[in-house]
Amino acid sequence: MKLNTDTITPSTVKVVKLEQEILAANEVTAAANRSLLQSKKIFAINFISSPGSGKTTLLVETLKALHGSVRCAVIEGDQQTTNDADRIAETGVPVVQINTISACHLEAVMVQQALNQLPLDNIDLLFIENVGNLVCPAEYDLGEQEKVVMMSVTEGEDKPIKYPLAFHLATALVLTKIDLMPYLRFDKQRCVENAYKIHPGLPIIETSAYTKEGMIPWLEWLKGKI
Amino acid sequence: MKLNTDTITPSTVKVVKLEQEILAANEVTAAANRSLLQSKKIFAINFISSPGSGKTTLLVETLKALHGSVRCAVIEGDQQTTNDADRIAETGVPVVQINTISACHLEAVMVQQALNQLPLDNIDLLFIENVGNLVCPAEYDLGEQEKVVMMSVTEGEDKPIKYPLAFHLATALVLTKIDLMPYLRFDKQRCVENAYKIHPGLPIIETSAYTKEGMIPWLEWLKGKI
Repeated sequence: MKLNTDTITPSTVKVVKLEQEILAANEVTAAANRSLLQSKKIFAINFISSPGSGKTTLLVETLKALHGSVRCAVIEGDQQTTNDADRIAETGVPVVQINTISACHLEAVMVQQALNQLPLDNIDLLFIENVGNLVCPAEYDLGEQEKVVMMSVTEGEDKPIKYPLAFHLATALVLTKIDLMPYLRFDKQRCVENAYKIHPGLPIIETSAYTKEGMIPWLEWLKGKI
Repeated sequence: MKLNTDTITPSTVKVVKLEQEILAANEVTAAANRSLLQSKKIFAINFISSPGSGKTTLLVETLKALHGSVRCAVIEGDQQTTNDADRIAETGVPVVQINTISACHLEAVMVQQALNQLPLDNIDLLFIENVGNLVCPAEYDLGEQEKVVMMSVTEGEDKPIKYPLAFHLATALVLTKIDLMPYLRFDKQRCVENAYKIHPGLPIIETSAYTKEGMIPWLEWLKGKI
């Protein structure tokens, strides 16, 4: 018995209006970040995913693989802790940790402050790891060139249609933890179909940071950007 | 080389002030929801987790197991789609789907509207499945009696310390997908320690909706509440 499937939305116009103001202010700072990055010839990627989908683990493997050929840097976004920045720092790559405290996403102004602390003249590729959240991070332009959405195969096939904006805006979908596929009821074909419903032709790269499967196509995709 | 781990927070006081106004208005509606639920002798649980941690799957198994002994109902929160409500509806339990569109969390006013559509005189236990997100859902009281936080063992041991508020406020942590443990490098002991850092003594219930492991302690925990 399904009683109702109508849309129930927040009732206060005030919230929407203010959100628009915040987003408009964010756009201005994002444009400044983008100009700065372009002037320094830095390609910046905004990584968006659920918590625990494996962003940092893939990033660590990526940084190791690019060591010596591409000059990378990382901005880490988390509500709390410097765990992720600590993991990145072990690779020797410059990293700035942003702790958002109560905010569920990075905003352009936070990235602007982080950029001030990075050696911008010595960076080709900047990874911005957003707060683990498939919703709000997609709404805030940080000044990056492209967004990459990641999801682990343990999360289920329906994520692209339940959280469409991130998949709509991304220029690639990285499927992570594919080494777990034999132990899951994950229907990859349905996941791909769902992703294409939101973003026809979206490049989909299947990876496992543990078995290293898919790392070569992923690195090729990255190198094609710089 | 870790350049900086200082906290960078949003710079606009305006945002914080308005957030406080929104939260204050939410509290009023949440209190009204709580009164209504208490007057109807309904125990309401607010389920919070990342996307894809298995909330709906566990819920479906829970509803099947409680069929005939406890009168349940469900409020489903998602940005988009009625997928989850459709899955719940197959169990025969009353369900209302809330689509939040751009919002990354449920608010009390949405739950208030959903309650109007449920047969409140015939419900003992109400499950409110929040939007898949470990951040903002923890900030919004919906009028529930208790919050339960869920995380899948695929998400990593650090989630309690990276997203502390949900773990702080919850009265139980349900670890899901424990059937996948043999294939992961998940350190359960460290996860438990992290959870206790945030919430000493938090009851932790290990479950697998596939193997049904842990369902009995979970159902006992639920029955103890009503």
